[in-house]
Formats: sequence, structure tokens, C-alpha cells
Amino acid sequence: MGRLVMKFGGTSVATIERIQNVARHVKREVDAGNEVAVVVSAMSGKTNELVGWATEASALHDAREYDTVVASGEQVTAGLLAIALQALGIQARSWLGWQIPILTDDAHASARITGVEGGEIIARFKNAKEVAVIAGFQGIHKDSGRITTLGRGGSDTSAVAIAAAIHADRCDIYTDVDGVYTTDPRVVPKARRLDKVAFEEMLEMASQGAKVLQVRSVELGLVHNMPVFVRSSFDKPEDIDPHGMPPGTLICSEEEIVESQVVTGIAFSKDEAQISVRHIQDKPGVAASIFGPLADASINVDMIVQNVSEDGKFTDLTFTVPASEFTRAKDTIAKAKAKIGYTKLDTATDVAKVSVIGVGMRSHAGVAAKAFAALSERNINIRAITTSEIKFSLLIDAAYTELAVRTLHTLYGLDQA
Amino acid sequence: MGRLVMKFGGTSVATIERIQNVARHVKREVDAGNEVAVVVSAMSGKTNELVGWATEASALHDAREYDTVVASGEQVTAGLLAIALQALGIQARSWLGWQIPILTDDAHASARITGVEGGEIIARFKNAKEVAVIAGFQGIHKDSGRITTLGRGGSDTSAVAIAAAIHADRCDIYTDVDGVYTTDPRVVPKARRLDKVAFEEMLEMASQGAKVLQVRSVELGLVHNMPVFVRSSFDKPEDIDPHGMPPGTLICSEEEIVESQVVTGIAFSKDEAQISVRHIQDKPGVAASIFGPLADASINVDMIVQNVSEDGKFTDLTFTVPASEFTRAKDTIAKAKAKIGYTKLDTATDVAKVSVIGVGMRSHAGVAAKAFAALSERNINIRAITTSEIKFSLLIDAAYTELAVRTLHTLYGLDQA
Repeated sequence: MGRLVMKFGGTSVATIERIQNVARHVKREVDAGNEVAVVVSAMSGKTNELVGWATEASALHDAREYDTVVASGEQVTAGLLAIALQALGIQARSWLGWQIPILTDDAHASARITGVEGGEIIARFKNAKEVAVIAGFQGIHKDSGRITTLGRGGSDTSAVAIAAAIHADRCDIYTDVDGVYTTDPRVVPKARRLDKVAFEEMLEMASQGAKVLQVRSVELGLVHNMPVFVRSSFDKPEDIDPHGMPPGTLICSEEEIVESQVVTGIAFSKDEAQISVRHIQDKPGVAASIFGPLADASINVDMIVQNVSEDGKFTDLTFTVPASEFTRAKDTIAKAKAKIGYTKLDTATDVAKVSVIGVGMRSHAGVAAKAFAALSERNINIRAITTSEIKFSLLIDAAYTELAVRTLHTLYGLDQA
Repeated sequence: MGRLVMKFGGTSVATIERIQNVARHVKREVDAGNEVAVVVSAMSGKTNELVGWATEASALHDAREYDTVVASGEQVTAGLLAIALQALGIQARSWLGWQIPILTDDAHASARITGVEGGEIIARFKNAKEVAVIAGFQGIHKDSGRITTLGRGGSDTSAVAIAAAIHADRCDIYTDVDGVYTTDPRVVPKARRLDKVAFEEMLEMASQGAKVLQVRSVELGLVHNMPVFVRSSFDKPEDIDPHGMPPGTLICSEEEIVESQVVTGIAFSKDEAQISVRHIQDKPGVAASIFGPLADASINVDMIVQNVSEDGKFTDLTFTVPASEFTRAKDTIAKAKAKIGYTKLDTATDVAKVSVIGVGMRSHAGVAAKAFAALSERNINIRAITTSEIKFSLLIDAAYTELAVRTLHTLYGLDQA
């Protein structure tokens, strides 16, 4: 007996038949004695259709009207799932963002949740044993009374925010993968599914390309200490043991991970380009003269490496950007040459970033040193290094990506038994 | 310079291109100095898709959830039209039923409007010259805070209710016909478009099959004395003279029709079946014993004819039902035979109802008598007659329908010059 949020994405609700399958998943939890709130996305493809229409109506459309249009997708799914649940004899009603309400700021199309009113939903758990079926991805801005949306993948964030508001025991995210892996199983067949991963580790992995959850939902889980369980939506409701724990990954606080590994996972990204700015003055304001123009051009900079200069006068600075933004980034820096005052740019596009993540690093010295040695043995050259408390990242030639990932995966004992 | 409501149906907003065409219609009125509220339906086909999903999820679905699902169609169109208007440089915002709010009762799926709050829309006309783009067909039930819908064709009713709430000068209904005709032009090629028709006449015609407007929108027009102008959505915005009056039919109060004709139009319905209940006692409660069971079976009875009995003891009673409900109606009456106490039932399915409508009838005697004579000359037998203040209806053999309609159309001077 507990209180659960269950979140289902677009693929899981793509057809009425699948919505009925979701209803059976919910019934399983209700029958096991749980109080349940379900958060749903739009039917697969619907959001793209709606976005397409808004763009066709006008390429430069008002984000407030865009939100009104696209939020309709989740509204439809919420109503349909409530109907499917009622057909199974389960008391249920749909809730739209403005009905709960889920309050957000007014950053339309990428709004942030500022508060969720969970009282009425809890009261209905108690008084009517009613399942709350909640449209994900949407909220309302209190002052204007207008519908807002949270940006792509926002239903994950809705789910965790609602879980916190109704004091749920856990937030289950049903998705098309059955959990979080030590690394991409397509590259390393020996990759293992992690039973548990700390919020902080997940944040480092998610932003590196482990596209399991919207990053903000993990941040919210961390802030509210709300355990998030990533599990497969393909499991048949009938096959799941209601008393056991199914396959999946629990994202939780560090403290709940009793035997934490030094290294939890290896992330990588081949979509990188490197720009090295040579012989710039080592004085305040130089970094700003480089990254200011890049920010103005909305270019996302990832790694930044600047070494201590030998002479205290001149230094080099290296940064990476997504490969798709390489040309724009190079042009931006070239235009600002006079202001920055560099001698030349060295660039490379065939580079990859490999990151090693683990909260255990905090208490273990020499974790990175082992990696340098192992890669050196394989003749893999390390172009640049950055580190954080629970992660270090290496920039290498892209051709060596798979070899490096497999080498590190074995090195840190992540291979399956 | 005035204040207008413009209503566009599903065909007019079926694609983004057509929505952009609607935007040009709106711009035309704004440029002419009008304050404009636009009411839109769902894109053609969308409501059917949504209804289909709700039915697939469960044949017996909760009307509250059905409303949440289907109301999304108008939400999408409202947002898209606001975007298209902004792209033409017109200040515009979308309004959903719950945002205005449009208050209704809680008869989900066929709710009735109980109030519309027009103040904010008027304030924005004044302060921001902003066009209000309003999702038709939907409202909100105040106590439950849930979305309601008004039933098929409900956007017409939304439009007239909003026109009344914002004190508009006129409500323009853009539709796929260019007005209301004296009769069906497919049957009578000489049928004329009426420039003006009284609300009461329109009510009699609409319920008879002139499917131009939802009946309730005409009732609302009558109650609020709000002129409703039916006009073609196919006219190009660019071709319309902003200072003249385009082709169409103005539905208005009797007083505004200066030279009213005795007869305004001829309506007919071939979808009729006749049931005559023979030799029933002429005493209180007998009619109730017939129509009570029919009402319980949700069978719509149309004409009812009962003559004064000759002997004060026994009489016959004839009524008509839609042909599709004939078998159910006959079975219902047969089951109640003991209670009603009739000797036999005479039935006919090949019958049609022809109605002659005109507010001028009130002040002109002998209008119906002329019809009886003219039909007699054509050897058309009249099976039954009913009359109201501004209409009389004749039940005839269906084979003579077209002949009867054409004869009456000419008789009352309705043929085009």
C-alpha cells in the first residue's frame, strides 16, 4: 500500500489499444492497494503534427498561442485514458494543467513549474479511491490565466513535480528502454543495467546523451528527494509480479545506494568539434570576450579548458561545441578576433568526448589516473581533460571512441558477469 | 465602425491555408474599423476523429471525459487562427471556453450556455484593438470546473451567445451555403435566397431540415434580438466590398422585415412514418398512455393529429416519427395496447411532410385554403393537417413531395423572377 505516480510517454499511448494496455498497468497498481496518479504525454506523432501546423500558420509564431495549440495533445490522451480506466471499473478523472493547477512561470514553450496544488487529488484518493489522470507537459501562468508548456520531454518533469506535490512514495517512468545502462549497449554489448543510480550521476549522464529522462525532471527529483524508477512500458501488465520489483533503474539519493561503485557509467558523445584559441593574453576579461559573442549567437559551449600560463602573460584556451554549430562558432570567434586578440585558431571536427561518472570518485583518489594509463596502453591520445567532483571528461580522436569506451568500461569493472 | 462576431465552421478552417484565408476575412473587417470576435469550429474531420477515439476507448464513455477530449479540436483552431492573424499584423489572442468564461450547465456533451463574461474581451477591444479568437462548441461548468461541450453544431450557438455578451451589432455565420432559401434549390430550381427571415420563421424551417444553423443559436438570437447574418465562406476576402452588404440572409426580428411576405418558405421532410391509432376512448389520459411510452423510448414524435370525436366517446389519433424509428415506435405502441385500449394500428412509411412557413400568415386568412385547392387540382391527397400560428404542415404520399413543393412555391409567389 503506497502512493505512486506512473508516467507514460507518447509511444505507450500511440493508439487506443495501447491506451487500454496502459489502463491495465494502472489497474494492476490500484488492485495492489496503491493510490495512483497517472501522467500522460500526447499520442505519438501528435505533438509533431501540432507544432507543424503552428509553424505553417506562421514561422515566427506567438509562443502563447503555440502553447494553446500543442497542449491539446496531452488533453486528448488524458480524457481517453480516464475513459479506458472507467471501462475497467476504475474510478478515474482527467486533470488538465489549469484544473489542478500546475502553476508555471510565463516562459511560454519552455516554462518552469513554480508550484503544484496536490490537495484535491489527495482528497479524492481518500474519499473516492479515484485515479487522477493528468495531462503532462502543460501548466498555467497564474497572472495571465494562459496555458503554458514545459518544452520537449516536459511530461517527465510534470510527473516528478506532481509526485512531490502529492507526497508520492515513488515516480515510475514507463519508457521504451528498461532502465539506465552503464553505457550505450550498442557500443558495449557487455553494458549492464544499473539497479540504482544517484540523481547527481544521472544529471551528468543525461546531459551527455543518455536520453532516458528530461534533465529537469532529474533536477526536480534531486531537489525533492523523489525516487524516480525508470522501467519498460513493453512489459505486459499481466506478467508483472505486484509484490516484486520489476527490471528497471531507480534514480535516488546517494545515501540509498548502499554499495556504491567508484564508477557508475561511461558516457560519450561523437557530436563534438574543438576550437583552440592560441596565444591570448592571460588577463581578466579575455574568456568573456570569447564566450560572450558565442552566447549571443545561442551557441552551446560544452567543455572549456584553459591551462595556467607558463609566463603569466599568454595562454591557450580550448572549447568544444556541437558539431552542427562548428562553422557558426568558428565564424563568430573569427569576427571577434580584434577584440579577443589571439594569434590563430586550431580546430578539429573529428573529435569525441568520453566521460567517466561516479559519485564514488569523491572519496577515491587516482580514478582518472587509471584511465590515462589504460588509454595510453591502447595508443589513444588525450587531447584535453576536464574534471568535476563526480565526473571527468576526455577529448579524443573520434575514431577511437568505441575502443576508449570499451576499455574504460572493463577497466572500472562495469562489464556484466 | 461597429462590433462584429464572425463564425467559421470546420470546412472553412480545414487546412492552414484556409485558416489563413479566414484571417484575411477578419483583417478585412478590422481594416474597415470594426471590433471583431471570431468563433471557430474544429478543423473538418477532427471532431469525428476524437469522437471515434472516445468510442473506441469505451462505447459507454463518461460524457465529462468525452467533452475533455473533443473540446481540444476547437482549441487547436483558435490558437492557429490567432497565429495567422498575428502574421498579418493584427493583434489577436485565443480564448478557450474556461478562459472567458463561457458558463454552462453540467449536461455534458449537450450543455446549455448559462452565461458569458464579455467584459475582458470588450476591454481589450478598447485598450489593445485586439481581436478575440474564441474556441466554439465549449464552455465550463462553474461548480465542477470541468470542460463542457454544446453538442454538434454548437459553435453557432457559441457565436450568438458571445455576440449577445459583447453587445455586438451583428453575428456573421460564414458557412458553405450563401444564405437561407425559400426551399431546397435541388428540388425547386427557382428557389430564391431570402434577404431577410424572421427568427420565428427560421426556427420553423431549421427544425424541418433546412440545416443551415443549429436551432438553439436561432432561439438565442430571438431571445437576445441579435441579428444573425448567414453568408458564404467561399467568397474571397479581396472581392468583398467593405461598404456594401454581401449576398446572404439576415435572420432578424419580425419588425425589421418591412415588406414581409405572407409565405416565406416551403420546408419538407421525406423521412417520415405515420402511425394511426384507431378507436381509442376520447377521455383524459389516453394521449399520455400513447406518448408516455414513446418518450420513455426516446422516440421523437413530430406531427400529432387528433380530431374531435363525433360521438364524444371514441376517436382516432395520428402521429409521425422519423422513418428510422418507425419499427421501434410501432413495437412500443403494440406493447402498450392493453393500456391504450385501441382496436387497430394503421401505418404508412411512404409519407412526407410539407410545411408552409411565414409570419405573414398571422394577419392573412385563407392562406392554407389556397394550398388545399392547389394540391387538389394536382390530385395530391392530403392525409393529415397540423397548423401553428406561422406554419401549416401537410402529410402526403412521399411520391408527390417534389410536385407538392413546386406547386406551393409557385402558388405563394416565391419563384425567382
